[in-house]
Amino acid sequence: MTVAFCFISSGLSFYYLNGSSQLIGQVECASSNIDINNDKNVPMRLRMEEYIKSLQQLITKEIESLDGKKFKFDHWVRDQGGEGISCILQDGNVFEKAGVNISIVHGKLPEAAVQQMKSRNKEIDPSKGPYPFFAAGISIVMHPHNPYAPTVHLNYRYFEINNEDGTPKTWWFGGGSDLTPSYLFEEDAVHFHKTLKEACDKHDVTFYPEFKKWCDTYFYLQHRGEARGVGGIFFDDMDRKPAEEIFAFVKQCGDAFLPSYVPIIKKRMNMKFGKEEKHWQQLRRGRYVEFNLIWDRGTKFGLQTPGARIESILMSLPLTARWEYMHVPEKNSREKKLMDVLKNPRDWVA
Amino acid sequence: MTVAFCFISSGLSFYYLNGSSQLIGQVECASSNIDINNDKNVPMRLRMEEYIKSLQQLITKEIESLDGKKFKFDHWVRDQGGEGISCILQDGNVFEKAGVNISIVHGKLPEAAVQQMKSRNKEIDPSKGPYPFFAAGISIVMHPHNPYAPTVHLNYRYFEINNEDGTPKTWWFGGGSDLTPSYLFEEDAVHFHKTLKEACDKHDVTFYPEFKKWCDTYFYLQHRGEARGVGGIFFDDMDRKPAEEIFAFVKQCGDAFLPSYVPIIKKRMNMKFGKEEKHWQQLRRGRYVEFNLIWDRGTKFGLQTPGARIESILMSLPLTARWEYMHVPEKNSREKKLMDVLKNPRDWVA
Repeated sequence: MTVAFCFISSGLSFYYLNGSSQLIGQVECASSNIDINNDKNVPMRLRMEEYIKSLQQLITKEIESLDGKKFKFDHWVRDQGGEGISCILQDGNVFEKAGVNISIVHGKLPEAAVQQMKSRNKEIDPSKGPYPFFAAGISIVMHPHNPYAPTVHLNYRYFEINNEDGTPKTWWFGGGSDLTPSYLFEEDAVHFHKTLKEACDKHDVTFYPEFKKWCDTYFYLQHRGEARGVGGIFFDDMDRKPAEEIFAFVKQCGDAFLPSYVPIIKKRMNMKFGKEEKHWQQLRRGRYVEFNLIWDRGTKFGLQTPGARIESILMSLPLTARWEYMHVPEKNSREKKLMDVLKNPRDWVA
Repeated sequence: MTVAFCFISSGLSFYYLNGSSQLIGQVECASSNIDINNDKNVPMRLRMEEYIKSLQQLITKEIESLDGKKFKFDHWVRDQGGEGISCILQDGNVFEKAGVNISIVHGKLPEAAVQQMKSRNKEIDPSKGPYPFFAAGISIVMHPHNPYAPTVHLNYRYFEINNEDGTPKTWWFGGGSDLTPSYLFEEDAVHFHKTLKEACDKHDVTFYPEFKKWCDTYFYLQHRGEARGVGGIFFDDMDRKPAEEIFAFVKQCGDAFLPSYVPIIKKRMNMKFGKEEKHWQQLRRGRYVEFNLIWDRGTKFGLQTPGARIESILMSLPLTARWEYMHVPEKNSREKKLMDVLKNPRDWVA
């Protein structure tokens, strides 16, 4: 059996476990010490762990109060080291399915795994492994019932390859957040992007334009020639600044999740809709499934990895989806308006 | 632009076209000259083409008479050579979605494509290409409404790499047929396998046991540790006997489709069912989507190929599907009984 953690840059996160993972029960989220993540003397891995735990609590609480239904918390441990908490709200009042998952895993990275980290080859000699690694990440996908309310996705992750003494040999951050509407409300796309841009700009004004473009490129269904949604931001292999600065940026982005999405969902969740809108939403859900199962590198590699926690990976899939042969939206329809934007990604913030 | 025909062994067929494919209209299926496929003086490519055209007509007619609704026939041409006919029946009385597609394509196979044909490397020197190729195949997927009625799949294909004078340098057949129930009726699995075994046995008694096993191995969701269904037969790279003999075998298998499936669908299509059964069927449809988008080599490579006719490839997906977090069938339930068989494929014919 080989360690098979997936470090592939991805829209999802870290459930790519060696051997098997074990569910150790449904738990109430323990309260975390949110001071740690501000303490520069504490190793980054602990600070990231604390941050994603506190973010998970914050977001699940807020979404519960919005939905009226509670998340189910599943705490699992990994045989070879590490743990995760999967929080799922299914068949809620507002959300058909919402998942807020974290995982913190560590172990040894074998040669085969190191070989896959092409962009890291200069730093890591596969013949000298296996190397100790550490990874911590948070993944969110929320699919609302209302066809006018968009699906949202977020993922942030921190990765370390360690020396034998536990200090990082190399490290990087990755992640992003993007919005997938079935019907286009330009003001929603603008609000979402504006909130992310403001978070980016506080750290580096070059981030937003670069990561917006990266997101459009990554969340793209090549076989359809269309984007998954109206985008957001995405980045990977981020180590171009001191870890302290990137961590501060990642926290800013994580903290921007609720402000970027909650105003939108509140505006759309009670809008009246009919069969036609639900039908179109289901077709768009089909596209979401296509992206996640065909193109998303994290999902793909995770699913092909023995011992992965499949249910945590696939929480990203919608509750229901639909595929029709040769469905084409009518000219000048609202459905066609969305397709035009997906075919030609737009700049939402000047 | 490169020729990017997909010759990967697959549960699906041949829509992996270079550049673009053009829909040239909806047509009534032309009547074919069924004598050609029995004439040994006619090149195999023409005989296979005639055979799959006649099989497509036979099957669509029979299924139409069963369903009461008509197939939509789409005839498309390939810029670089060849054509296809996609026949889809959607939202019928018996079938939620049924597709019977054929394609007959030819062109040049570039080095990159030849490189992928690993098992053929001994016969084909990539540095001496591009080689002319020819491929003809038929693909069928039928998803019935009734949760007690199983989904069925069939694919048979013939492939040639040609010399400059058009004679085959190398050739092979591939394909198979398999059954995917949501509820297990042992007698249905037995009938399906028995019909296929009888077809196999008429040509070689070693075929059925070998191809039954191959099918169980191929139509397998590795990430779930479960088979897609109760199997059938599957083979590829088949050139171990004279083409004449294998063609006769393939025709026998194709001809066995209706006898293998129609008695089952007739028995199940009007059975009474409730919400619970429909719900379980939808979850199983989700698994079907997972297999086709994650594991099926033909679908995967086809979708990643520029110019493929996406709608023909994805006709294999069900009309609707569902994913629930941590859904586990109850002990001793009928749902659990199916899962046990999917986890431990059974021999259905002694």
